[in-house]
Amino acid sequence: MTAGTPPAERRARAALTRVIEPGDERGGGWLARFGASRLLELLTGEASEAAACLTGVGPPGLDACRARAAAADPERDLAAAAAVGARFLCPGDAEWPSQLGDLGAAAPIGLWVRGAADLRLWALRSVAVVGARACTPYGAHMAASLAGGLAGSGWVVISGGAFGVDAAAHRGALAAGGATAAVLACGVDTAYPRGHAELIARIAEQGLVVGELPPASHPTRSRFVLRNRVIAALSRGTVVVEAAYRSGSLSTARWALRLGRLTMGVPGPVTSGLSAGVHELLRTEGVLVTDAEEVIELVGGIGELAPVKSGPVLPRDLLGPECARVLEALPAGGTDRLAEVARDAGTTVDAALARLVELHSLGFVERHSDTWRPAAPRRGGGGPARGGA
Amino acid sequence: MTAGTPPAERRARAALTRVIEPGDERGGGWLARFGASRLLELLTGEASEAAACLTGVGPPGLDACRARAAAADPERDLAAAAAVGARFLCPGDAEWPSQLGDLGAAAPIGLWVRGAADLRLWALRSVAVVGARACTPYGAHMAASLAGGLAGSGWVVISGGAFGVDAAAHRGALAAGGATAAVLACGVDTAYPRGHAELIARIAEQGLVVGELPPASHPTRSRFVLRNRVIAALSRGTVVVEAAYRSGSLSTARWALRLGRLTMGVPGPVTSGLSAGVHELLRTEGVLVTDAEEVIELVGGIGELAPVKSGPVLPRDLLGPECARVLEALPAGGTDRLAEVARDAGTTVDAALARLVELHSLGFVERHSDTWRPAAPRRGGGGPARGGA
Repeated sequence: MTAGTPPAERRARAALTRVIEPGDERGGGWLARFGASRLLELLTGEASEAAACLTGVGPPGLDACRARAAAADPERDLAAAAAVGARFLCPGDAEWPSQLGDLGAAAPIGLWVRGAADLRLWALRSVAVVGARACTPYGAHMAASLAGGLAGSGWVVISGGAFGVDAAAHRGALAAGGATAAVLACGVDTAYPRGHAELIARIAEQGLVVGELPPASHPTRSRFVLRNRVIAALSRGTVVVEAAYRSGSLSTARWALRLGRLTMGVPGPVTSGLSAGVHELLRTEGVLVTDAEEVIELVGGIGELAPVKSGPVLPRDLLGPECARVLEALPAGGTDRLAEVARDAGTTVDAALARLVELHSLGFVERHSDTWRPAAPRRGGGGPARGGA
Repeated sequence: MTAGTPPAERRARAALTRVIEPGDERGGGWLARFGASRLLELLTGEASEAAACLTGVGPPGLDACRARAAAADPERDLAAAAAVGARFLCPGDAEWPSQLGDLGAAAPIGLWVRGAADLRLWALRSVAVVGARACTPYGAHMAASLAGGLAGSGWVVISGGAFGVDAAAHRGALAAGGATAAVLACGVDTAYPRGHAELIARIAEQGLVVGELPPASHPTRSRFVLRNRVIAALSRGTVVVEAAYRSGSLSTARWALRLGRLTMGVPGPVTSGLSAGVHELLRTEGVLVTDAEEVIELVGGIGELAPVKSGPVLPRDLLGPECARVLEALPAGGTDRLAEVARDAGTTVDAALARLVELHSLGFVERHSDTWRPAAPRRGGGGPARGGA
């Protein structure tokens, strides 16, 4: 699954996640120009050569980079990640979500990922649900019900793991027995906020926990804001549920607009300050949505089931072994008994769900409420996926 | 004020308001073809000639028209109107709002009007605020506060005199010491709903009560719906505050869209069924608004202070005598003491307010909150109105 990236390049990228801050376009430019290994060499070699090659930053900035590069220990970070069941993904990996390339020089150097699911396949059918930390009960209700509806239709709910709207969205998806991914502004082994340690652990089991920063990294204000670009870029569209006027909660929406993703908002009472930011968005470029169906109608329109342009399209006999076993275990008439499917496929319920969501992304299965069933064969026969065997 | 329409034509049009239902395009076609006097002659003359000329309707329909025409007594209706202080306006009158022509064959045959203000001048700067009868406290609050804000900025609030949102809008404008007009689906001497007898009487004093139907006419379901086209056509834009999904409250908005008027909606909680219709509108063609300023920004954009294309533009020395006296009585630095202005102009407070709103439409005065003051002279000098002396 992580074949395709040479080990030295992967190791260098892992090191660079400790050197270059998320979204640093200057660092992204160096990476594009020199490649990860050569960039790391430059940062850990002769100061004069580094200064000659790595332009666009003053001596203090370059010195700070070099100090971080000297201290970076990718073997230790990769081991710490492995210890919590996390892997490190690079561009070029089969599991890398190629749509992150839309971020250009601000694209992540790599992603640290916890969870059994395939990030690329999950992100293919994902929607971000984000909003205010200090949301009202109305905002929490709308986030949970939207996320539950999206998850119930086989869509993956992406959010930021924060208090308020984010937490309600993750919980709504989990409660619907659905798929959810949390993109953190810290290391994936670091529970932030602390009060969400249990929620984040649950997401790592049933879903995915994703971050750009290496293990044990702590969030900062700018990391929160720049994390939002990953949420926006991963998903097909972003729904904002409650945000104060001109608040930071709107930054994911602004990233989504900039990236050409669908940007949606849930209206609320004009008398509520926590809806003022959403109304501001809806008065300019956002689309008003009131339920999951409306969201799906909008995001589904962007090429139903279409895998990302540059990614591979799997014929059935190229499915991973667990995916193939889960697809095999699914009764022709469908079932809502995930435990039985998991047993027949020889895996856990969480893993079976992860595989079903992936199979859904590839068009092999359908989900209707709690029932999963094999997809009806397309006209003209053959596999359900384009280019199928 | 009512010069311009020959007395026989006016009398015939008054009669026809009792014969042809509001919005009847077939009747409007006859009117355009024959003129009012000749049409009335045809309807009250030989049956065979009527049948030969008035095509597009079966014998029972034509017979019903002829029966109503035979029973019509315009002198009695005009006298009944005069008894409650109402006048009858026809296309061609100086006070006729020429934008009603946008309704084509469905334009009103004439309008019965109670109140001291000039309908044409008021409608130049008017916004319709409409919505559900069974509104929530939130809807009533939003309607009253929008209407108060519009009235406080010198805009005329038009609505339908119904329970719920309409009443809150009228009351909000009245409470702000502003201008409001009720367009009824019955005779202007008929208080419908009965519970609004007092409100409608107050609007007739401080504002305008308008209707297409002759005195003592009662509303019907289709008259309510067709009344909405007059509200939409008179105003520069329509704001919907609460409407259930696919409810009749949206019909004014649909008319506004059809007529190319601005169509706006106030969002509310998704969990409220009474906001579902507004959200439906906002998901298609309506513009989300949250306060009076946003409404004014939108409707004011359509040519600030621009009088309707075909109407006359008054230079200062062509103002009516009461208008001229009120303008004269207004202190150069402005005042919020309408009673003093009224006293100095030798008129009542209600009449002074009506004149001030007209002067505002023509660009002679400005209103800021409760203070009225003469408008600052435009660059290049001369009167404030385009084409001014």
